[in-house]
Amino acid sequence: MAQVLQNKQVLFKGYIDGVPNETDMELKVSKIELNPPPQGSQAILVKNLYLSCDPFMRGRMRDFHGSYIPPFVPGQALEGFGVSKVIHSDNPNYKPGDFITGFTGWEEYSLIRRTEQLRKIHPDDAIPLSFHVGLLGMPGFTAYAGFYEVCSPSKGEYVFVSAASGAVGQLVGQLAKLYGCYVVGSAGSKEKVDLLKNKLGFDEAFNYKEELDLNATLQRYFPQGIDIYFDNVGGDMLDAALLNMRAHGRIAVCGAVSQQSLSKPKGIYNIYNLIIKHIKMEGFLQSDYLHLYPRFLEEVSSYYKQGKIVYIEDMNEGLESGPAAFVGLFHGKNVGKQVIRVAHE
Amino acid sequence: MAQVLQNKQVLFKGYIDGVPNETDMELKVSKIELNPPPQGSQAILVKNLYLSCDPFMRGRMRDFHGSYIPPFVPGQALEGFGVSKVIHSDNPNYKPGDFITGFTGWEEYSLIRRTEQLRKIHPDDAIPLSFHVGLLGMPGFTAYAGFYEVCSPSKGEYVFVSAASGAVGQLVGQLAKLYGCYVVGSAGSKEKVDLLKNKLGFDEAFNYKEELDLNATLQRYFPQGIDIYFDNVGGDMLDAALLNMRAHGRIAVCGAVSQQSLSKPKGIYNIYNLIIKHIKMEGFLQSDYLHLYPRFLEEVSSYYKQGKIVYIEDMNEGLESGPAAFVGLFHGKNVGKQVIRVAHE
Repeated sequence: MAQVLQNKQVLFKGYIDGVPNETDMELKVSKIELNPPPQGSQAILVKNLYLSCDPFMRGRMRDFHGSYIPPFVPGQALEGFGVSKVIHSDNPNYKPGDFITGFTGWEEYSLIRRTEQLRKIHPDDAIPLSFHVGLLGMPGFTAYAGFYEVCSPSKGEYVFVSAASGAVGQLVGQLAKLYGCYVVGSAGSKEKVDLLKNKLGFDEAFNYKEELDLNATLQRYFPQGIDIYFDNVGGDMLDAALLNMRAHGRIAVCGAVSQQSLSKPKGIYNIYNLIIKHIKMEGFLQSDYLHLYPRFLEEVSSYYKQGKIVYIEDMNEGLESGPAAFVGLFHGKNVGKQVIRVAHE
Repeated sequence: MAQVLQNKQVLFKGYIDGVPNETDMELKVSKIELNPPPQGSQAILVKNLYLSCDPFMRGRMRDFHGSYIPPFVPGQALEGFGVSKVIHSDNPNYKPGDFITGFTGWEEYSLIRRTEQLRKIHPDDAIPLSFHVGLLGMPGFTAYAGFYEVCSPSKGEYVFVSAASGAVGQLVGQLAKLYGCYVVGSAGSKEKVDLLKNKLGFDEAFNYKEELDLNATLQRYFPQGIDIYFDNVGGDMLDAALLNMRAHGRIAVCGAVSQQSLSKPKGIYNIYNLIIKHIKMEGFLQSDYLHLYPRFLEEVSSYYKQGKIVYIEDMNEGLESGPAAFVGLFHGKNVGKQVIRVAHE
């Protein structure tokens, strides 16, 4: 007879405008029967171990169907990247005991029907399991594809990274340093600035909240101008960077976390710099580069094992802490990649 | 003894903000001795036949030294592209009677000291001399380099061109049609829209001044979305185009004529579309592609001679008409490429 267990869930309550609040989500305790998935369903039943908090999830809280990913369904559990352990499987690619990463529910146990985009993890003592939603997951791959493929870097170039201690930025900066670039990062607290300079190896870093005139700030850190701006924030920082780009500069537009909370984003006024300096500004999604994923996994795992890069996580304990952890992203509370530990293996 | 002649000139009076006015320029009649240039100077003395009115000249009227080209000098003649005939030469590359194109003064006769960027014209009865500042000059080459090199077109793609009947836009649209694209243009009058549809071969065209909601307009003309936007205007049209781009679209940022007159440009609010649709937005200057100039001249001359493309000029007679013709650019008065005929050969 099937085992019946409690299944705590974080439910999405309904569509929102502006910054997410904890009250937009609801903790519910359901029950779940740990039955094998129906025969022929190809589904797997998993126990979730780690859940990832990512800014893009905010986009799924709006009632907007024109994006690359559909909105959440009110009344159902949130969905996001996770690391899970297979309990039952109707899929020949996965067997009980396997570790997988990919989209899962914000709950203790999930039935995953769409298994095509899951990735099996081969546990490695040298690499924490949770890194598969960070350094070796979507954020890490975003940094990798964005830096190498969108920024077209050259050795010795001047690189600026915003939200530089975040899930993506911290790897962009380290890859740029390994590539031989000069790297400056911005972040929103003294603690983060210290991490950038002392732990992540950035050449310089500043706290944007203490700067009155971002144009002057960038002039100070880049008297010769910026070759590459890896933009994780949009808004005023993007506008200031446009003024400080060098000829033939490249801007990778990766995120606009400063703008996610605004129903009408702030205007960008310095677009004309694209013309006079021949700047390429390119938005991208890591999903456009999935053919590079195997190479990324190999290279970045190897860098990590060799101690050439580090990766900072902000780990919250328990599914209950999920809503606060997610909301914290939009207030810069997380220091490093925000993860929720749902269960110890 | 040297011949002494009247030399009418259009002088630049002083730095301005906002839209240029005729009163920012001054007509002056000087005298000039048609002496051979000093020996060893490498200079040439020319009689100017055609002068080109180009929006980029507005940038040289500001007291701003950070651009790719220095500002005009108050009290001196304006400078711009022209077609001229050599009268005297101290340069072995040019002899009296040669026709040349390149930077010259807004005056009847000019002493040209910087001859490196001049181009000798080989007169061809099938191609009007004035086309060397239009179809075969900087605007035509801007269209050519921008369309082929920046837009990376594919056959069958949906192309939108703003300021489509202008010096650059009219060629972009025709090149795109020859390439097998579907092409829609915007312009600012019924007359221009008629030209686009009936003479220049655009699939569709609209008068942006009659449209209340540019987003809805573009949705109507591009129900499937835009693959390539060749942006000659910036501002609201760029913002509306961003909303209507397809995934992996490309925006060539060529000009921002709608913004040239504003001391503070309007904001662009839809930059986040770059991310969700993986759009590349690239500013460019034709001068970055000069290695393609010979190929451009050959191909576009050949298209023209075969009747595959046409080119519309707006010809003003006499240097006196220069200031009004130039100012007219910023009010959309010109229909086609604005040229001033200074003298008949």
